[in-house]
This record gives sequence, C-alpha cells and structure tokens, in this order.
Amino acid sequence: MKNEQHATDQVVAALLPRDKCAAAHGIELVTVRPGYAEATMQVREDMLNSYGTCHGGMILTLADTAFAYSSLSRNQQTVAQDLSINFIRPGQAGDTLTAIAEERTLGGRTGVYDITVTDSVGKTVALLRGKSFRIGGEIVTTEENEHD
Amino acid sequence: MKNEQHATDQVVAALLPRDKCAAAHGIELVTVRPGYAEATMQVREDMLNSYGTCHGGMILTLADTAFAYSSLSRNQQTVAQDLSINFIRPGQAGDTLTAIAEERTLGGRTGVYDITVTDSVGKTVALLRGKSFRIGGEIVTTEENEHD
Amino acid sequence: MKNEQHATDQVVAALLPRDKCAAAHGIELVTVRPGYAEATMQVREDMLNSYGTCHGGMILTLADTAFAYSSLSRNQQTVAQDLSINFIRPGQAGDTLTAIAEERTLGGRTGVYDITVTDSVGKTVALLRGKSFRIGGEIVTTEENEHD
Amino acid sequence: MKNEQHATDQVVAALLPRDKCAAAHGIELVTVRPGYAEATMQVREDMLNSYGTCHGGMILTLADTAFAYSSLSRNQQTVAQDLSINFIRPGQAGDTLTAIAEERTLGGRTGVYDITVTDSVGKTVALLRGKSFRIGGEIVTTEENEHD
Repeated sequence: MKNEQHATDQVVAALLPRDKCAAAHGIELVTVRPGYAEATMQVREDMLNSYGTCHGGMILTLADTAFAYSSLSRNQQTVAQDLSINFIRPGQAGDTLTAIAEERTLGGRTGVYDITVTDSVGKTVALLRGKSFRIGGEIVTTEENEHD
Repeated sequence: MKNEQHATDQVVAALLPRDKCAAAHGIELVTVRPGYAEATMQVREDMLNSYGTCHGGMILTLADTAFAYSSLSRNQQTVAQDLSINFIRPGQAGDTLTAIAEERTLGGRTGVYDITVTDSVGKTVALLRGKSFRIGGEIVTTEENEHD
Repeated sequence: MKNEQHATDQVVAALLPRDKCAAAHGIELVTVRPGYAEATMQVREDMLNSYGTCHGGMILTLADTAFAYSSLSRNQQTVAQDLSINFIRPGQAGDTLTAIAEERTLGGRTGVYDITVTDSVGKTVALLRGKSFRIGGEIVTTEENEHD
Repeated sequence: MKNEQHATDQVVAALLPRDKCAAAHGIELVTVRPGYAEATMQVREDMLNSYGTCHGGMILTLADTAFAYSSLSRNQQTVAQDLSINFIRPGQAGDTLTAIAEERTLGGRTGVYDITVTDSVGKTVALLRGKSFRIGGEIVTTEENEHD
C-alpha cells in the first residue's frame, strides 16, 4: 500500500514536469493515489467561449488530465481510448473547477474511470466516463514496485 | 439557401470575436455552413502532454469548437449537452489538425453531430459525437431570417 | 419522503403491468425508490449469442429497464435520450444478472443516471450511463403528490 | 475482394445458426459484407414498453446484432467493448426496423462502427456508435483466407 503510493508519487514526479499542456492551463494536481486523481483549474479569460463562460474544451482538458493521471497512477503505461461527457452547468469565469477521477473497474488491459467536475461551491459542472488501455511497460522503475 | 448562409455568416461574425478560448488556441474556422463547421488548430508546444503528443484535451477543444459552430450555424441558441470521443491515433507536435462537424439529425430541440478530427495527411485522429439542445431564441436578428 | 415513495409505488403499479418487453424477458423489479431502481433477469437460452454467452442486447434490455424506472420514479413523464455502455465481462447462461440504476444529477429537464450490471457473485458485467429528458406531465395523479 | 466476401459468408454461416437471441427476436441479417452489416426486426407485441412503443432494449438488441456481425465480418474474433446510443424517435408497434452498421475505422486491435436504426419509411430511430476489440484468432478457416 505504502509502496504503491510511492510508485504513484514517482509517476507523477516523472510525468508532470513534461506535461506542458497542464502547465499552460494552470492545472494543478492536488492528489494522486492509486486509481484516483484530483486536479484543479481556474477559469481564466482565455478559457471563455463567446457566451463568457468556460469553453467546453477547457472543462474537458481539466477532466482529461485527472483521467490521465488516475489511469497512470498504477505505474502502467496506458492510453486514453475514449471519453464521454455530460455537460451539467456552465463553469463561471474566475471560478476554480475541480475534477476528481476515480477508477470504477480495472481488468485485463482496460480500465473504466468516472470523472466529476465541480465548481467552487461543489455544484456539478460535468460528469465524464473514460476508458484506458494498457499498452504494456511501466512508467518508472522502482525497487519497491514488486506488486503486479 | 442563400439567406440561410447569410444568417450563418452573421452568427459567426457575432460569436467568433468573443470566443477567447478559440483565439487563445489558434483555432481557425475554415468553413461554416448550415449544419456544418470545419476548424483547424496547429499543435503547439504548450498543447503537448508528457508523451510529447497532443494533449487529449486540446483535441477535444478543437472538436468542441467545430461542434459548437455547426450547432449554432442555424442561428438558434443551443448548448452542448454531451460529447463523446474515441481517440484513434495521437496528434503530432507541430502538425495542423482539422475538425469537421456535421449535423446527423435535427429534430424537436435536439441535434446530433458527428465530428471527425484528422491530421495533415488525412489520417483520423479522433471520432466524436455530440448532442446539442436548443434553449430558445435566435443569435442574430436578420431580415432574411424568415425560415423557421 | 413517505409520500414520495408512495407516488413511486403507484408509478410502478401503473406502468409495470403494461411493460410487455420486461415481462417477456423475465425482468423483475426488485426495488424502486425515488431516483433508484434495481432489476434482475435470468440469462435464458433464448438470450444467448453465438458464443453461448448473454447477448449484449439482453444486458442492455435489463439495464435500460432499470434506467427507465429510476428516471420515472419521481412521477414525471420522461424519455430516455441516450445510453452508453461499457461491456466489462460476459453474462453467463443461466446466471441471474442484477441492474442497479441510480440518479447522479437531476436539474432542469434532464437527469443523468448510472447503471451497473453485476452477475450473481457480484462481479461487474457492464457499466452504463443514461440521460433522461422530462417531457412534461405526471404519470399518476396522487393526492399526496404535492411536492414539486 | 471476392475472397473476402467468401470468408464473410462463411463467418455468417458459422455464427448465425448459433445466435439464439437473434432468432428469438426475429432478427434477420439482410446483408453482411466486410465492414458492413444490415439487419431487420419487426417490433412485436412482446417488445413493447409501457407506452406501447418499442422498448429501448429491443432497439439496442437489433443494433447490437448488426454491430456484432459488421465487426466479425472480417473473420477476426472480436468482442464489443462499448456502445452508445442516441434515441431519436420511437419505434412503432408492428413496424419493421432496419439497422445498418458500418466500419468507420479499423486499426491495431480496435474498430469503430456507426450504426443507424431507421423505421420502415426511412426515418431515423436511433444513432449508435460501437467499439470492438480484436481478441486474436480467426472465426472460420478458409483456404481463400490469405489476406491479412
């Protein structure tokens, strides 16, 4: 358990500094645990659509980031296969959105993840579901990494 | 027909200058016709994930933009209800991606749109399907706009 | 609360006897509460595909039934807008599958529901997400039905 | 080309007689070509929901059948990974519905298929998209089957 978290921490340490898109959008990883990731993003001016609310693509960028780290958290190379989103309510300019991604199932080479995006008062902005595919190989080599 | 295209052009002229997110991501609207939109985006450095390929959220931002304008093209106020994506192959750094959104059905208050994202040699990067909901009201007032 | 459940019971009593498809497939409603429905179905010989496991359409029929009753449980006329399914593992011949549908969000006229199908030892067979749309009107008239 | 169709015909000849669910629901395969399948189903009394229209699960059963044969048509063992449906209009009692499944992309081990369900006057009843996964191995052994 402790070792698993250690591997997760190393995965984040290896990948996050190279994630230019997350950095450019001010996305912060609050927590990453095996099968879980929580990320935040403030809705900036350059993220607004023509209605003055958060562009759907920006909500998806935040959610996809949380999804990616939750599926990579077990130190297995994975790729996102698909992602679906239900837009529930707009994200407001200046507000900070939170995306929580949680593993629902993991078996064989595919995993299913639920991602919920909420605004700063806890209201649901979007519900997503994503599927990952394990392409083989580990992300980081850790001595502790002896679990399957 | 000509009048419909005229209304579409006015919608784009009204909305695009206010779409800060599209501008910030260098998204260009190549063509917008009633029920159709084509948009391009070059994969910049700040759009890359930790694998050095286009972040899924950026592909979604491009596709969501094409989706939005195709559903707004009929001069009816609509919102995106949901969007699903199948990631087919990575978008490469520096390449220019094209998203084409086409109306599949439009009835009552909902419309279904297929969006295809391809790379610069025409290979499919992602397939998406989105659903819009008409919330009532027109976007621009046009004398010509006498069709339903 | 008690009144809400009373209305839910009346909805089920009104609709279930007319649901010929559910009856023909041996689908039983175990529990229906406001925003929740649980249904079971035994995988019969005539539900098998050419691999000898439960046809995907039959899993969807069970899940769609649970989805329908969970969204109708609040005594509002609704229709299913869309449904997506991730197939996780096969349903086995002779086994009894359980579908649990739970409301995730309900606002304006749309509701989002998660449906989980499990086999008789509790393993996940499929994960679904559905969206309903309220078309207006109540299903049954109840004196108690004074909540919004 | 001719050889591919021959293999497809053999796949259908091998699988269809064992597909008890398709038979029990009166589903007929009209055409199966490599990457394409067309199936029909009459909406019987025992397929109706409590509103007297075709149960969503039955539309899904028809569509899933067309999807399955289109993805198996290339004589590769595949399983359905996921399927999403947009319900557009009801299927009417007594009407014959047609589902056409077409391959959109096929690469590596996954394929994406679009399935359209129409009623007997050609109106769209449902739009679906499904994804298949190739699990390895052929369905039938054919001398002609020398293409990859």
